[in-house]
Amino acid sequence: MKTRAAVAVGAGKPLEIMEVDLEGPREGEVLVEIKATGICHTDEFTLSGADPEGIFPAILGHEGAGVVVDVGKGVTSLKKGDHVIPLYTPECRSCPSCLSRKTNLCTAIRATQGQGVMPDGSSRFSIGKDKIFHYMGCSTFSNFTVLPEIALAKVNPDAPFDKICYIGCGVTTGIGAVINTAKVEIGSTAIVFGLGGIGLNVLQGLRLAGADMIIGVDINNDRKAWGEKFGMTHFVNPKEVEGDIVPYLVNMTKRGADQIGGADYTFDCTGNVKVMRQALEASHRGWGESIVIGVAGAGQEIATRPFQLVTGRTWKGTAFGGARGRTDVPKIVDWYMDGKILIDPMITHTLKLEDINKGFDLMHSGESIRSVVVY
Amino acid sequence: MKTRAAVAVGAGKPLEIMEVDLEGPREGEVLVEIKATGICHTDEFTLSGADPEGIFPAILGHEGAGVVVDVGKGVTSLKKGDHVIPLYTPECRSCPSCLSRKTNLCTAIRATQGQGVMPDGSSRFSIGKDKIFHYMGCSTFSNFTVLPEIALAKVNPDAPFDKICYIGCGVTTGIGAVINTAKVEIGSTAIVFGLGGIGLNVLQGLRLAGADMIIGVDINNDRKAWGEKFGMTHFVNPKEVEGDIVPYLVNMTKRGADQIGGADYTFDCTGNVKVMRQALEASHRGWGESIVIGVAGAGQEIATRPFQLVTGRTWKGTAFGGARGRTDVPKIVDWYMDGKILIDPMITHTLKLEDINKGFDLMHSGESIRSVVVY
Repeated sequence: MKTRAAVAVGAGKPLEIMEVDLEGPREGEVLVEIKATGICHTDEFTLSGADPEGIFPAILGHEGAGVVVDVGKGVTSLKKGDHVIPLYTPECRSCPSCLSRKTNLCTAIRATQGQGVMPDGSSRFSIGKDKIFHYMGCSTFSNFTVLPEIALAKVNPDAPFDKICYIGCGVTTGIGAVINTAKVEIGSTAIVFGLGGIGLNVLQGLRLAGADMIIGVDINNDRKAWGEKFGMTHFVNPKEVEGDIVPYLVNMTKRGADQIGGADYTFDCTGNVKVMRQALEASHRGWGESIVIGVAGAGQEIATRPFQLVTGRTWKGTAFGGARGRTDVPKIVDWYMDGKILIDPMITHTLKLEDINKGFDLMHSGESIRSVVVY
Repeated sequence: MKTRAAVAVGAGKPLEIMEVDLEGPREGEVLVEIKATGICHTDEFTLSGADPEGIFPAILGHEGAGVVVDVGKGVTSLKKGDHVIPLYTPECRSCPSCLSRKTNLCTAIRATQGQGVMPDGSSRFSIGKDKIFHYMGCSTFSNFTVLPEIALAKVNPDAPFDKICYIGCGVTTGIGAVINTAKVEIGSTAIVFGLGGIGLNVLQGLRLAGADMIIGVDINNDRKAWGEKFGMTHFVNPKEVEGDIVPYLVNMTKRGADQIGGADYTFDCTGNVKVMRQALEASHRGWGESIVIGVAGAGQEIATRPFQLVTGRTWKGTAFGGARGRTDVPKIVDWYMDGKILIDPMITHTLKLEDINKGFDLMHSGESIRSVVVY
């Protein structure tokens, strides 16, 4: 079949809207009509050429929602008409990782996914004889796409595509970092570095988890009002703090009898390795946990004195918020439908596929929290 | 009163055996006759001058065992004749740290302890008018010493001092890192870097916890036989491995269906920041935890790519094995008495106080696992 798609033809070039060939689903695969897709920093990271594993031409996009159109042989858990969210972190439920109960990082199709192809090693996308690569196993910048059954979460059919697509990455990453990775308890103190699309979702995850003190840190004062919408109780602009931000934050978090200070949980949502260090060091002596969410530039390293760890701080990271896609994503969709979490205000821009490059511009300028393309 | 002690008169100088003045216990304090004391790398770290917080003259030693001789006003949990192990990490049971249930790093007397004085700000040791500082709140290189009540664990009176003194630091640090900090589960894989006094105790902690595969890593082949005594199942000498040790270890730990590899838990007992990085990176994608136990040189930093954390590895540290001294140390003494853990083979040298400097020499040369001074 033919489908309209925004194709990444090369590093640093704008996406090109074109009609591409899409082969139908093979065994264990599912054809999905994407109804809406978010534009995420990770797409930008690859499109820019900064991603050392980026390959072109490819169809980017990994934050979508849509409807099952057709299923291949052997597919049992999905049928035509089901509403689904594509999962760049699949959940096969039978690999050593899924069975470990300790990680969401299913490894069933990891190798081929990283190579931009389906699990059988081939691509479903092409133009004539020229192969086009898949991206993160999703390629939601195509109106129709093919995914493995294990990479699709079946969700509430009443949920609006143009909002829940964001659960395919940003919402789940932010909220999941709080509830799955950090396992924040009621009454905790927390600091969130970087109040973009991920940071705001960390904030609402902390509100959901019942944190007492939720400090947002951003160099953009406009983000104060944004943070407050999602549960932030205190805002700090490091540019307006004299001296080192770490002792400033440690001092802020001294409470009651505890005159040591430091947050119970800190989250880096900036991708800046210096901020990652600040986040660790602003966590509480004895039990503070710092979670790296942001993606750093290629080759960059984090550092600290080991004394920070020996005195009880823990340094962790999270991918897709530690969420098991098929199990947890449908629950998050329900939380949205029940009003437990907000998504609508974060979708600041809705675009047509033709205008997808404008979505990247809005991200660059910091104007958007999230732009969503509606097909 | 007068007591014999080995006094650290200055950085880099041998200890001097002399008779010093010891004031009796004030309120909340306890006078202890030290019967035996281990010599630990931390004493050496301070004596060498490498410890930026080291002060002189001081009475070092923090790994002792002895008998209560007298108690000050208000002391309720100990009486004359009780057998005790001094705790450089006290357990007051009422500070925010003790009440957090999340850390063993009691902060009740942290500030004064670091300054080499008792909680009231004064020292009990002197020679004439010259003050001598306490060390780590213990000063077990003195035959008699004074400690706060909260810094003494009451232990089984049948236990031999010259063995259980080692529980005051090395044994508890190693075993505790496994059971309190890492919380290793039955069937785990683990790698221990550095098979000195701490590393061997990590090994026996892993055996106690039921780990399946216990890999010891040391550049000294003599440590293979040592490791095997304490539960090590595989030995690796990095000098005999071609290329990078990390992929070598990851490959070793591939088991059954899991072809990713990496250990569930890794422990650095070297204090070398490069080894700390190897330990992290040799832990399993998705759920590996790496525990820093070794103490690095002043100003040294650990580093890694944040990708290591984002893909599910956790970097932690431990001090005194995460053990709450008054609660956990008596249990470890009982485990020793019940034959659950071994100590005797690790005490390779027993010395008189007069020969204490020889104990440091034995440590330098790698000849001893642990030297113990018996008064």
